[in-house]
Amino acid sequence: MASKEGKEKAKGPAVQLKTPKGTRDWTGADMILRDEIFTTITDVFKRHGAVPLDTPVFELKEVLAGKYGEDSRLIYDLADQGGELTALRYDLTVPFARWLAMNKVQQIKRYQIAKVYRRDQPAVARGRMREFYQCDFDIAGVYDRMIPDAEILRVIYEIFEALKEQIVIKLNHRQILDGIFAVSGVPADKIRAISSAVDKLDKVPWADVKKEMVEEKGLEEAVADRIGEYVKHSGDIPTIVSLLKADESLFANADIKQGVEDMELLTSFLDAFGVPGKKISFDLSLCRGLDYYTGLIFEVIAQPSAAADATAPAAGGKPAKKKGGAEEIQVGSIAAGGRYDNLVGMYGKTQIPCVGISFGVDRIFTIMKAKREKEEGKSRVRETDVYVMAFGGGNFNGLLKERMSIARRLWDAGIKAEFAAKTKPRLPQQFKAAEDVPLGVILGEDELANGQVRLKQLGSGSGEADEKDRGQLVSEDDLVAEIKKLLI
Amino acid sequence: MASKEGKEKAKGPAVQLKTPKGTRDWTGADMILRDEIFTTITDVFKRHGAVPLDTPVFELKEVLAGKYGEDSRLIYDLADQGGELTALRYDLTVPFARWLAMNKVQQIKRYQIAKVYRRDQPAVARGRMREFYQCDFDIAGVYDRMIPDAEILRVIYEIFEALKEQIVIKLNHRQILDGIFAVSGVPADKIRAISSAVDKLDKVPWADVKKEMVEEKGLEEAVADRIGEYVKHSGDIPTIVSLLKADESLFANADIKQGVEDMELLTSFLDAFGVPGKKISFDLSLCRGLDYYTGLIFEVIAQPSAAADATAPAAGGKPAKKKGGAEEIQVGSIAAGGRYDNLVGMYGKTQIPCVGISFGVDRIFTIMKAKREKEEGKSRVRETDVYVMAFGGGNFNGLLKERMSIARRLWDAGIKAEFAAKTKPRLPQQFKAAEDVPLGVILGEDELANGQVRLKQLGSGSGEADEKDRGQLVSEDDLVAEIKKLLI
Repeated sequence: MASKEGKEKAKGPAVQLKTPKGTRDWTGADMILRDEIFTTITDVFKRHGAVPLDTPVFELKEVLAGKYGEDSRLIYDLADQGGELTALRYDLTVPFARWLAMNKVQQIKRYQIAKVYRRDQPAVARGRMREFYQCDFDIAGVYDRMIPDAEILRVIYEIFEALKEQIVIKLNHRQILDGIFAVSGVPADKIRAISSAVDKLDKVPWADVKKEMVEEKGLEEAVADRIGEYVKHSGDIPTIVSLLKADESLFANADIKQGVEDMELLTSFLDAFGVPGKKISFDLSLCRGLDYYTGLIFEVIAQPSAAADATAPAAGGKPAKKKGGAEEIQVGSIAAGGRYDNLVGMYGKTQIPCVGISFGVDRIFTIMKAKREKEEGKSRVRETDVYVMAFGGGNFNGLLKERMSIARRLWDAGIKAEFAAKTKPRLPQQFKAAEDVPLGVILGEDELANGQVRLKQLGSGSGEADEKDRGQLVSEDDLVAEIKKLLI
Repeated sequence: MASKEGKEKAKGPAVQLKTPKGTRDWTGADMILRDEIFTTITDVFKRHGAVPLDTPVFELKEVLAGKYGEDSRLIYDLADQGGELTALRYDLTVPFARWLAMNKVQQIKRYQIAKVYRRDQPAVARGRMREFYQCDFDIAGVYDRMIPDAEILRVIYEIFEALKEQIVIKLNHRQILDGIFAVSGVPADKIRAISSAVDKLDKVPWADVKKEMVEEKGLEEAVADRIGEYVKHSGDIPTIVSLLKADESLFANADIKQGVEDMELLTSFLDAFGVPGKKISFDLSLCRGLDYYTGLIFEVIAQPSAAADATAPAAGGKPAKKKGGAEEIQVGSIAAGGRYDNLVGMYGKTQIPCVGISFGVDRIFTIMKAKREKEEGKSRVRETDVYVMAFGGGNFNGLLKERMSIARRLWDAGIKAEFAAKTKPRLPQQFKAAEDVPLGVILGEDELANGQVRLKQLGSGSGEADEKDRGQLVSEDDLVAEIKKLLI
């Protein structure tokens, strides 16, 4: 054996022990917190009638082609090893659209929780990775205006209530935005380019955005200034709606008129759904980069909790533009989405309108972890409820088979149990291994001779004190019932 | 909108609407059955104290290099787009070994449920895909002989009991196998090649295996015949152990002696763990292809259930070699694993002995789906418990906001509820949409004026009969409580 190992090691230079750039392993408390977030989100998705979908991690290259604009350069290709050309999925929206078209699905609420891949510059501390999870919920089908859109916003609200995270949902409407650009005098062929410049307003000041529009994208300065006047506005929906209606040149635009009607409908639906107005900010500067949005668009911004505010900025937080006098701490958007009515039609004959939201779980995780570490300290990693141990005197034989038999009884009853995989384990070792386990079953030869074992609550520090107190005597046959009582 | 859609469509030829070869989408009843299998397996893993691990879908190429022998050609490489060279994971064992070495973990029970990738010839009907799930459970660390090995076998037993699948666990021991080859006269440098020939014995007859050994691999015919005499034996552990002990030339070999001692220990541990002897077959022809096994190896074979036996062969089943007179139906192995004590040492200075099992969930799924379709017919796809609908007379306004408010009440109480996303839905449409939903809440203007709604059990066929019976009157404030009573 030893020689074989030597041979294998001699094969080449030592392997670099790391995960690829921008990726990480998940385990322990991190993994448990992440699973908790998944479960919370999934529960809400199911509450709204969504069904799960799972698609392959790679798609045919032609399926992804032409969907992501400038960001296509971030797609991970698989090597051409003969056969089809494929690439790792970039998001969950395009695979969903492909699936809808392929299966001619007319309407569905579906969710998908899966990893997506982007060859972007990673920023690990802020939770921006090359491999990361997205949780998507989309409503596909022909329905009456703004009803599914409002339900998506209700889903967002419900999820962050369940996660106990303070958020604001920024809203805008692509038709309103397009109308503003048209009224301001942006040529039709420049609208997407100007839109992507305005999209940067949450990261850079207006002067820089204007410079990009005028110098890089060749927009007339007067046009840029008119845009600047409009997109600086944000507030609750009724306020911004009044503002748009009051401006005759804007409201004469058919796109804007339609968009404003949508926003008014939305207000009344959100009211019926019990989504508080203070959670919503109608922000005329919100654009969303991707090309495929056609109606309502939204982005969820985490708000620092009162507690975090009083102590330190959130992990990776940076001060953003001043708004209403108070300085906001921003950790970027933690969920985003919108209406995309034309994407499915790119794959087939049938157009299926869709609206959806994608949760950036890794960023939500980053925020929740920072908060939890402050509040709680360390959490349990494994779920084992009972540790089966043995003690004995001079010619102690370790009671291995007896420990195995007891563990078997517990497993048969569905109880999470472990024991030391040693023939003759020492008692302190066993207590150490049981450190984070709530109950101990302790076997001794004398007790076993009477068909009894000792049952003991651990976790009182499980040191020497624990070793002395050996718990209550319980008959072997009552053990499962007694343990179940204590675990409730 | 229409013009934009037209423009996008005109961009290029129609995209091929398919998933890449050997991959598939999962949804509906399939997805729910698969999740059920995952949950059952995960519950057993946790019952044994295992913690979850999640690793990236791709690893550095050098991490995968030299681990899979001939099968390395099946690895999916990512394209070289600058930066590191990476490849999709081929299994979950090598990433686990990399993680152990990287984090200097001394001992752990870990599980991982994730997709793995092999550029193999797909056989979709038999559940062999290029992208498929594995569920792995491994015990790493220095423990006393055969204790973790026995626990792995107990985990296998527990999982298939929980899944209600009949299985046999085939066992062998690499040291016994190596001893048999040595005693038979196989030169040391040919042992792995001969081993991989013998491994084919469950698929091809002995004559073909012998031909491969003699003609392709240059083994003396007399040596091949001696091997043939040994590897034809299988049976319960005590029978094969007696047979090995009775053969003096075999038992004089140190490897075989050690292996036999292990198998004897194992028998007594399996007894303590309550794993029935009839579930185990000690099969001297079992080799397992991969190089890294060093001790006990095992493979789980699904047994056709009595019912399936009486009707038709299982999906993709094929008759295998005759054994004891009865013809077995084989669907291939549905789980496999073994002890690998040297793999982690290939990455670092510390050797960490491991033993583990990998469940081929897609094959388990294929078997269970075939059985379930025979037994149960269609199963529910979404989990919605309540459908909120409205009915009314001539100038019926659809009660949209009222339906939204009621849905909101239900969501607030954690109840899974839906409603038609139409302003004025027709009643038959609403009943149709509620086809697989157990409860209906029906709103009417008169009832609402009295603060009441109607609550109705659906699912009695939900056709015209349903539309006439409009259920019991319930006050809006009692609705949640009444629904919760009915859902228990």
